[in-house]
Amino acid sequence: MDAAHMRATVEKYIEAVSTDNIELIREIYADNATVEDPVGSDPHEGIAAIEAFYSRIHGVGVKLELTGNARCAANSVAFPFTATTQGRTLEIIDVFEFNADGKVVSMKAYWGA
Amino acid sequence: MDAAHMRATVEKYIEAVSTDNIELIREIYADNATVEDPVGSDPHEGIAAIEAFYSRIHGVGVKLELTGNARCAANSVAFPFTATTQGRTLEIIDVFEFNADGKVVSMKAYWGA
Repeated sequence: MDAAHMRATVEKYIEAVSTDNIELIREIYADNATVEDPVGSDPHEGIAAIEAFYSRIHGVGVKLELTGNARCAANSVAFPFTATTQGRTLEIIDVFEFNADGKVVSMKAYWGA
Repeated sequence: MDAAHMRATVEKYIEAVSTDNIELIREIYADNATVEDPVGSDPHEGIAAIEAFYSRIHGVGVKLELTGNARCAANSVAFPFTATTQGRTLEIIDVFEFNADGKVVSMKAYWGA
């Protein structure tokens, strides 16, 4: 997988979540994608469940900001960022896995109390 | 898994690799652990293969430095760092998964060209 495409997808994701853009979310994920956020919770499976998940996030309002460069390896990318919502800032690392079409098929978010 | 234990293991790992301490490596990993470094390469399976892998790294000489906080989720931790070797610095994110005994059973390293 092309590293430039994976890095561009990370930038698109940061924008999508921060600006409440569900169209961008739909562009990023494959129809059969899974989202486990945080790792250890029940995954959201399929694009409909994923859209519903991001709609709930958008209802709260959140700003994401990268705190380091995205790290690409094979068909995966890991990236560190902060998520600020209601005056509280969480530190998170997400890992995306891509399919052959360049869509994200798996997202895992590492964060916790 | 206790977040404090996972964070302490990350600190121990940074020290182990930076100071060429194979004893610490042996404390960190379970006997049946796998190490995929970088993601997409053939994994090193089992503690003997893992020790051989770190011995090769130590032969080159490398210093690791955390560049952000470790992010804990369930039985996993993800952490951003740099690895400096022979005047070259790589940006990496590692993900550890722990077993019930508090040992790392899976390590995946995200980095590339």
